[in-house]
Amino acid sequence: MQFTIDSLDLDAIEVSAPLPPNVNIHGTGFAGSIYSVAVLTGWALCTHILEQTGVAAELVVAKAEIRYRAPVSGDLRCSTRADAVERAAFLGGVRDDGKGVLLLNIDVGDRPEAVLQATYCAIARS
Amino acid sequence: MQFTIDSLDLDAIEVSAPLPPNVNIHGTGFAGSIYSVAVLTGWALCTHILEQTGVAAELVVAKAEIRYRAPVSGDLRCSTRADAVERAAFLGGVRDDGKGVLLLNIDVGDRPEAVLQATYCAIARS
Repeated sequence: MQFTIDSLDLDAIEVSAPLPPNVNIHGTGFAGSIYSVAVLTGWALCTHILEQTGVAAELVVAKAEIRYRAPVSGDLRCSTRADAVERAAFLGGVRDDGKGVLLLNIDVGDRPEAVLQATYCAIARS
Repeated sequence: MQFTIDSLDLDAIEVSAPLPPNVNIHGTGFAGSIYSVAVLTGWALCTHILEQTGVAAELVVAKAEIRYRAPVSGDLRCSTRADAVERAAFLGGVRDDGKGVLLLNIDVGDRPEAVLQATYCAIARS
């Protein structure tokens, strides 16, 4: 997939991956690659939030729904964000209940050409 | 991903992929690989149904929802099926309306450890 993190802070992340290794038989973005880069984008943001705030947890994806709206004909570019309220609920869940949940909407492309809604769960390390 | 089609007929398909190239940092199946092998499993069955019945169409995935229920600790094994009624509706849509839709439930593992519900659209070639 060859993905690169282009920008990353607590609020937001931008990731990209080149099209050529991720094409389908139509020469556009392969559905599986689009999903994979998108799910990794959210995973990277969650990991960054946990690390930067010193919360030790195992992170997993619980479920995800992707909608493909249009073919992706250029590089795969994914972005998502989590505001302070969402981050506080996520981290508070890990600290207080042993499990924090963060629901992220990850856009692929500017249009966006696809949207992934993914639920990440962080389980406190015992 | 290195996936292999283990069995395939008009009714059903079984696909597998080895775990080692598809692991996450926990050493179990990577969410993106599980999704990708599962979405390809459904795609392969749809393609086979179209080819065997001589229906010329472009196949795309419109949307998909995956639920991860448990870690996948062995090879990724995916299966799905479409009965005669579902196939007839799919093919009839392409022939009569220019667009056929097939909704498939694709199991990953025996438990199953994950389930993908994916909507495939076949658009008649003009």
